[in-house]
This record gives sequence, structure tokens and C-alpha cells, in this order.
Amino acid sequence: MNLILLLPADFVSPNQVRLRDRRLKHVVEVHRAGIGDELTVGVLEGKIGRGRITALDHDYLDMEVDLTQDPPVPLPVTLILALPRPKVLGRILFNATAHGVKRIVLFNTWRVEKSFWDTPKLDQENLRDQMLRGLEQARDTRMPEVWIKRRFRPFVEDELPSMAAGTRALVAHPPATEPCPRGLSEQVTLALGPEGGFIANEVAMFEACGFRPVHLGNRILTIEAAVPAVLGRLF
Amino acid sequence: MNLILLLPADFVSPNQVRLRDRRLKHVVEVHRAGIGDELTVGVLEGKIGRGRITALDHDYLDMEVDLTQDPPVPLPVTLILALPRPKVLGRILFNATAHGVKRIVLFNTWRVEKSFWDTPKLDQENLRDQMLRGLEQARDTRMPEVWIKRRFRPFVEDELPSMAAGTRALVAHPPATEPCPRGLSEQVTLALGPEGGFIANEVAMFEACGFRPVHLGNRILTIEAAVPAVLGRLF
Repeated sequence: MNLILLLPADFVSPNQVRLRDRRLKHVVEVHRAGIGDELTVGVLEGKIGRGRITALDHDYLDMEVDLTQDPPVPLPVTLILALPRPKVLGRILFNATAHGVKRIVLFNTWRVEKSFWDTPKLDQENLRDQMLRGLEQARDTRMPEVWIKRRFRPFVEDELPSMAAGTRALVAHPPATEPCPRGLSEQVTLALGPEGGFIANEVAMFEACGFRPVHLGNRILTIEAAVPAVLGRLF
Repeated sequence: MNLILLLPADFVSPNQVRLRDRRLKHVVEVHRAGIGDELTVGVLEGKIGRGRITALDHDYLDMEVDLTQDPPVPLPVTLILALPRPKVLGRILFNATAHGVKRIVLFNTWRVEKSFWDTPKLDQENLRDQMLRGLEQARDTRMPEVWIKRRFRPFVEDELPSMAAGTRALVAHPPATEPCPRGLSEQVTLALGPEGGFIANEVAMFEACGFRPVHLGNRILTIEAAVPAVLGRLF
């Protein structure tokens, strides 16, 4: 937690907050902070600044906050991700959020195991919790949006074209001949497949929407490692 | 397991292997392969090719192998990594190996928690197991070397200068003014700090060895995400 994320309900006055939950625990156990100490804070969807601890008890923590800076600039990318296995879904969302991604689509493809769709980890509350932690990691305040698209064809045919319009649209596909570009500053729409990759017909449908198939080298990374690797390369 | 890694002891003749352990289990349960099926195989430190299943039993699996291709080219990097927390050490080694890193130094810094050095996860056998799995993920056969350096000063003063000589030496340091370079093809020596970063004196000692401090943007990634992100950016 490199930033303590404040929610509207925490404010007892325009520049004073009272915290209880895991944030209190973290300040005491990890920061080992006491009265008078200053920590980095930020308001969800708002500014970043410093919070000075004015009271600290077993049950609560009061801070006087001074919020002056804008949060970091978002990465100009929409990440379109074949639903990963439940075990790694949280970590992927956490890391994508920490990296600055603000638009994430989780969608179905031929090689996504059907059982993945039944996980409670897909609950909005769990997704939000992972992304909150990603914001705290990266000192950011702007929550990503996540869309869940369980049907491949309607998503790709009806929604993807307008989502990708006017952006550099890329689909990661190991057999592609073109390497993934690097150091971009334009808006990107990036599709990443499941373990085992997209099937040829899926890649063809992406191409029909203006996506270019690109490869990431001749090694196969897990999706967990591929997301930071491709974001590090693209931006 | 995108490649089944064969060890010298598996060979019953120059082109025949017998497998038992978790590889047998993987072929049956994940690949759901049977007699006559072909899978990608590679010999540890050797070539890659195809293996055709000639016998399959509860206890063992025989394959006829044809090994013709060289493994992928290693990444030209030595990764010098402050010892990460035990919980993520294995995943970091797995991902670095899958990415093609062949030289890894785990070393001590001021902000590495002392208790991290006591973990059984640092045992050679465990490190080797994680890296074997990284090779299987990436379809590679060349095992990385890992050095463990528990004392910062002797390592940095006596060993680091010759290790970094003739390479592009970079130390990741969030307050640096210079961004991390991208798209390199030369040999790189890359130092990554612990959670909380290097202290100023450590960065100064790296600089005295010819390292340039570089930043990775204004977001703080976990070391787990930073390793693939920086490798994706550098190469």
C-alpha cells in the first residue's frame, strides 16, 4: 500500500478523515506510523496528497489531509483479455491496474475453459477489491472499468468495432509474423488470448475488425507475465 | 508445460525415452495424449524436437524422439535482484526463466527483510524446480544460473564491477530522471531493488560501478510485475 485510498464515506469534514478497516491495520502494522506522521493518501477518483495522523486508537485513525496533486496519467489502452483461470484472475487485474490500465474487457473464446465462468472471483466486489489494491500499489486513484462479455460472437461483431475504432488495434498471436510494436503514445486496443491461444477463426474475426496480429517473441509467457511484458513494451 | 523437458537419465537409447513422474501425469491429464500422438520435447541444455508416444501405461510413458532445433536465443541480460519475499520468489524465477533470462543474482540490500534469507524456498532444489517449469512454459532447454549473495558490500565492491564490465548497466530507481531505455540488443546488467527501493547509498555504489539509475514511469509496480515489464521494455 504505497497510497492510502480514501472513500467519500471516510470524510468527517472537507479535510479530515476517519479510517477503520484494513487501512488502519496497515498504517499501524506495516507503516508503524504514529500521531504526527505523514503518509501518502488519495481520494478515489480524485486528487493525491499527504495525510497527517491526528489521532490513533485501536478502533480508528484520524488524519488531516491536504490533496493537491492529480493522479498519474492513465495508460492509453483498452485491454481485451480472454478470461484467465480463477487462480490468477485477481493478480492479473491487480497488476493491470497498477500498470495504469483503465479499461478491461474479460471475454470468452474457444479455449477458455467453461468452468472459469462459474468462479465467485468474477463477482464485481472481488474485482473491485483487487483493483483498489492495484491503485494503492501504484499511487493512483482512478478505478478501471471492467466489462464481462461471455459470448464471443456478439461481443466481437457488435461491440468490438466501435471499441477499437480510431485506435491502434493489436491481437497477440504467437504465429504472427509482425512483432509487437514498442514505445507507442497513441490509443491502443490490445487483445490477449487464453492459454493455448486464439483459434484461427477468432484471429480472422479480430482482423476483420481492423486488428493486426502481432507476436511477442518465440517464448510463450503465461498470461500473468504477458500482461506486464506487453504493457512495458507498448508504452 | 508447452515442452516436455527430457533429462539424460530418461534416455533408454539415443532416440528413446521413458518418463514416469509429473511429466507422465501431465501428458495424460492435460494433453490427454495417447499412443501415436506427438508432443514438443527438448533435452535439458540441448535440442528441441518432437516426441511420438510409443507406449503408455499407468506407470510410464515411452517416446521416440527426434531432436533437430536449437532452443530459443537467451535474453542478453544479467538480472541482479534484491531477494524478494519468499511467497513470490518462485513465481519471479519461473517468469524470468520463461522470459529467457539466463543469469540471475539474488542479493541482499538494506531494505530486504532479514527473515527472507531463512526461507527453504532458497534451496537449490526448489530454485531449480521453478526454473525447470519456466523452461517448460517457454519451450526452452537452457537452465539459468543463479548466484546467491548474502552480503551487499563484498558483492558490489568485489564481484559486480567485472560482472557489469562491457555491458549496459542499469539500476532501477524510481526517483531517477532518466527513463529506462527500450529495444536494446546489447548485453545488459539490470539491478532491481526490494519493496521500498534501494537506499541512496546503495544507488551511489551502483553508480560507482558504472550503473545508470533509470525509472520505469511514475507508478510503483510490485517486483513480480516489474520484472516482465522491464524485460518487455528492454528487449
